[in-house]
Amino acid sequence: MSVLRDLHLATYHESVEPYAYADGDALVVRLRVPAIVESVSVIHYDKFKRDETLQNVKAQWYAREDREFVLFQARLTRTSKRFRYFFSIQALGETYCYSRSGITFDEPNDADTFEVPYLGERDRYSPPEWTKGAVYYQIFPERFYRSGTIANDHTLSAWDETPTADSFFGGDLPGILAKLDHLTTLGVDVLYMTPVFQAPSNHKYDTVDYFQVDPNFGSNQDLKRLVDACHKRGIRVVLDAVFNHMGANHPVFKDLLEKGADSLYASQIIARDWPLSPETLNYETFGYVANMPKWRTAHPAVEQMLCNVGTHWMKETGVDGFRLDVSDEVEHAFWKTFRKAIKAENSDALICGEIWQVATPWLRGDEFDAVMNYPLGRAILDYAAAATLCAEEFLYRVEKIRSLYPEHVLASLWCLLDSHDTARLLTLCDENTARAKLASFIQFTMIGAPLLYYGDEVGMTGGNDPLCRGGMIWDHVQQNHSLFLHYQELIALRKQYAALKDGVYRPLFARDNLDICAYLRRCEKTGDTLIALVNGTAEEQFVTVTDALIDDVVYTLVTGDGPETFTKNKPLTIAPYTALLYVKTGRDSYGR
Amino acid sequence: MSVLRDLHLATYHESVEPYAYADGDALVVRLRVPAIVESVSVIHYDKFKRDETLQNVKAQWYAREDREFVLFQARLTRTSKRFRYFFSIQALGETYCYSRSGITFDEPNDADTFEVPYLGERDRYSPPEWTKGAVYYQIFPERFYRSGTIANDHTLSAWDETPTADSFFGGDLPGILAKLDHLTTLGVDVLYMTPVFQAPSNHKYDTVDYFQVDPNFGSNQDLKRLVDACHKRGIRVVLDAVFNHMGANHPVFKDLLEKGADSLYASQIIARDWPLSPETLNYETFGYVANMPKWRTAHPAVEQMLCNVGTHWMKETGVDGFRLDVSDEVEHAFWKTFRKAIKAENSDALICGEIWQVATPWLRGDEFDAVMNYPLGRAILDYAAAATLCAEEFLYRVEKIRSLYPEHVLASLWCLLDSHDTARLLTLCDENTARAKLASFIQFTMIGAPLLYYGDEVGMTGGNDPLCRGGMIWDHVQQNHSLFLHYQELIALRKQYAALKDGVYRPLFARDNLDICAYLRRCEKTGDTLIALVNGTAEEQFVTVTDALIDDVVYTLVTGDGPETFTKNKPLTIAPYTALLYVKTGRDSYGR
Repeated sequence: MSVLRDLHLATYHESVEPYAYADGDALVVRLRVPAIVESVSVIHYDKFKRDETLQNVKAQWYAREDREFVLFQARLTRTSKRFRYFFSIQALGETYCYSRSGITFDEPNDADTFEVPYLGERDRYSPPEWTKGAVYYQIFPERFYRSGTIANDHTLSAWDETPTADSFFGGDLPGILAKLDHLTTLGVDVLYMTPVFQAPSNHKYDTVDYFQVDPNFGSNQDLKRLVDACHKRGIRVVLDAVFNHMGANHPVFKDLLEKGADSLYASQIIARDWPLSPETLNYETFGYVANMPKWRTAHPAVEQMLCNVGTHWMKETGVDGFRLDVSDEVEHAFWKTFRKAIKAENSDALICGEIWQVATPWLRGDEFDAVMNYPLGRAILDYAAAATLCAEEFLYRVEKIRSLYPEHVLASLWCLLDSHDTARLLTLCDENTARAKLASFIQFTMIGAPLLYYGDEVGMTGGNDPLCRGGMIWDHVQQNHSLFLHYQELIALRKQYAALKDGVYRPLFARDNLDICAYLRRCEKTGDTLIALVNGTAEEQFVTVTDALIDDVVYTLVTGDGPETFTKNKPLTIAPYTALLYVKTGRDSYGR
Repeated sequence: MSVLRDLHLATYHESVEPYAYADGDALVVRLRVPAIVESVSVIHYDKFKRDETLQNVKAQWYAREDREFVLFQARLTRTSKRFRYFFSIQALGETYCYSRSGITFDEPNDADTFEVPYLGERDRYSPPEWTKGAVYYQIFPERFYRSGTIANDHTLSAWDETPTADSFFGGDLPGILAKLDHLTTLGVDVLYMTPVFQAPSNHKYDTVDYFQVDPNFGSNQDLKRLVDACHKRGIRVVLDAVFNHMGANHPVFKDLLEKGADSLYASQIIARDWPLSPETLNYETFGYVANMPKWRTAHPAVEQMLCNVGTHWMKETGVDGFRLDVSDEVEHAFWKTFRKAIKAENSDALICGEIWQVATPWLRGDEFDAVMNYPLGRAILDYAAAATLCAEEFLYRVEKIRSLYPEHVLASLWCLLDSHDTARLLTLCDENTARAKLASFIQFTMIGAPLLYYGDEVGMTGGNDPLCRGGMIWDHVQQNHSLFLHYQELIALRKQYAALKDGVYRPLFARDNLDICAYLRRCEKTGDTLIALVNGTAEEQFVTVTDALIDDVVYTLVTGDGPETFTKNKPLTIAPYTALLYVKTGRDSYGR
């Protein structure tokens, strides 16, 4: 192994997100280096006065992507907001520079430094404060509760029947309103509802009228009443914005089917030829679903209409934001316009995209505030539910996800283990409640804004869509009270310890025992430090945490069936399928 | 050396520019690999129908960043515009996969592939066709020609005096109009003028009135006349947009100085406290220049006014685009708004930013069409003018620049060796005309849109600003006719061979002689291939080009003092400071 060659091959930086991003007044820069590197510092200056403005900032260890790669991160600030910079790297007793000239012994020329020329006022972004670590509760309105006050057009199944793709159960908005005590008792911060606007299906992703609540769900007034009632309880409301496509019954598509290329709307969808043929599918759709024709958002009237949908419902009902369906298949250009419209109406509104994979391009500050962080949910499931991932690999997966996004954005990303689009958590855990508790423990104590899918908290099961969309279990006898108390406690702990909400997260690599997953959360304001230890195996495990990141003080058990205290470098026993959370509150007289 | 470890450390891809970008209907993806890799292919599919839509595309060798890193590139197309993909890598007889799971032997799961979920209509971008490989001629209006028809407020220096920071020579717009034959004789495509709007200085980067041509330069009507005359000759016109800052005499700043925090304009600049103090500089400026206060473009009125400046002059005079002064210190958010305004007025207008370093964040399609490619100019100068870079290192520097941008954008980037902000080319060459000819030969035959700074073509010299801003030499006796003919020929060659304008560029590494710089240009339409051979040394050099990229046919000399023909694998002699250009036109019967 040649140190120079390793440094050359593995070191990476580019002056773009997520390697360089604005966080308030600071420019945060990250450097990927091989694991042999001991420390990194950043030398930065204003190009107009290099010598007078030179600063040297020590970078912090930020994440370890795998055994080879480590990310260092530093916060730089300058009155002039102008940043030229290069890195100084210490490895095996030598010091190297890293710049656009690559790895060198000498400092780079001014022209070969990295640069973020100016941190513009509107180029900094932060998700709304309330979204950081908020707890979401997701409701599929057709299945939550039937108030009985709304006439329903459909033949309704019995509430506890197994759902099919076409069945209707009759849930409605007054039903949700009637059951808000359930949300308050759980303690959730935000209600997210899948679509509520007029559409023929039970899921309502095939919109017919964006400006009308589906009559089977109630009236526009019912939506307004529900939002008002939530707000009174301190619960925010997020609606589902289905802008990728319309439903086949939408007047625009009906006109297109009838009039073909002569329709006034001919350029509002993307047709390969005319007349439209749902059989050969000669127009763009969601997936290959003929009755979900895709909007051509590049058409000014479409763009304007869809933006109006957003601002209309904000004005009419005061909703707090939108979850954007299939957002990754809609033009970036559209979302930039949409963001401007939404933020002009309410700068504190949330814009959260449905994106199943890596979402860096949508999180540069000019499109979304957050996304549904499916990769994180998958990692938790692979470790705690499916047990296909050992603890060490799980922690690396989390590190990779953390390396993809600005650190101050992580707390707003939705952390979800299931949804209306996947099998339910308990089913994914083979109905092993202990595993489901482990997975949700991690979901609620790691990073992000946990999303609880209605019914998981009372032990509902169900495979992939449509099976995961059953009628909510309201019968106390059938509800799993242990699970409910578990979620209630997790949510309460997040309120008690800000560290769990949006504190610093760092993995702890329990070197002597790869089966134990351990991590810390720390709140910079209060000084509280929490340590989570998770045994995802069926055996009792012994672990000694030696990590330099944690202080050598006594931590006290907060929750979980384990020893009352935990101390660094001292062995600890963890029962099978057990999660323990320890805390050291505040700072001691040494400032620790 | 372990192959697996090398692959792990060196392989890099991310689904963002420049590693993944749209070019028309295609998604272009690049993969960085260690040099041991022999070939790369891309397996891509539509996530909704993986098996039915799977395609395997062989990637092409695109660039070699240095001895260790090679970039492969592939063009992917799909009717559905949805791309999930991973890479297959062949190295030393083994095949590996590369995905979000890293280097593996097995194909990745669907969830671990890379993804560009959808190529949106407005998310594809291409600079205007006319900007690809266009030849620009830059004029500093105060120094080009004095018509004598415009009254001048200043005490004028003699035309051939050495310029100072404060001197005035009296050049004007009717003067440029009078000398358009000079541009036509050279054959340039575009006239770029530094600022022409009302401002007290000779350079006019301290604007007082954005809507008024400086009276010393003429009237608004004179600007219109000049643009019309250029258009009649087929020459486009690009103006300088100075939007980072205003001049201290601008009415807004004068009001701010007078009224302080009570001024109606108080939030249109960025003040740290009040009253404003040019001595302590308690407000933001260009550099640390007190009389160039920075606009706060986040203020809606400022944003609107500056966008209006652009569209106003497009409407009034028909100018073809803007070069944006200090564009890297203006908010990205502003440029996104500006682009929309300009492109709404004329989608074919050019937006080119002044950016001295790497400009990836501005070239994602929603801000600029092009930038001034200073890094490429510096590389050419380091090799051909200063001789501080050997040919091999020079070609690597070019490769690194090519790796930073989408390939179809490269031809529109301004390739400049000097400007009003630097010493002149001939001065940088220690007045060695042979070296200046070599440097400009490369400038005009490599990649991009060459910018010729007024007077270089007649042998003007001058150190850094203000010395580089002398009065244009019009006296035939004093003009360097050999240089003029040289530029005239280079421009004519670009018109004759489309390959030089926007053809494919590839370096040729003359392995046996690191002092020879060699590269090819190829036009996919005509099949023309040109080979450039440059000897940047003071000695005669012998070279044999063996590169697999070029065909084993006879190439004919186009320009330069050298052998009439050139053939692969056959030794060739090049005189000191000599550039040779060979061509093989069209395709032979074998399609070569």
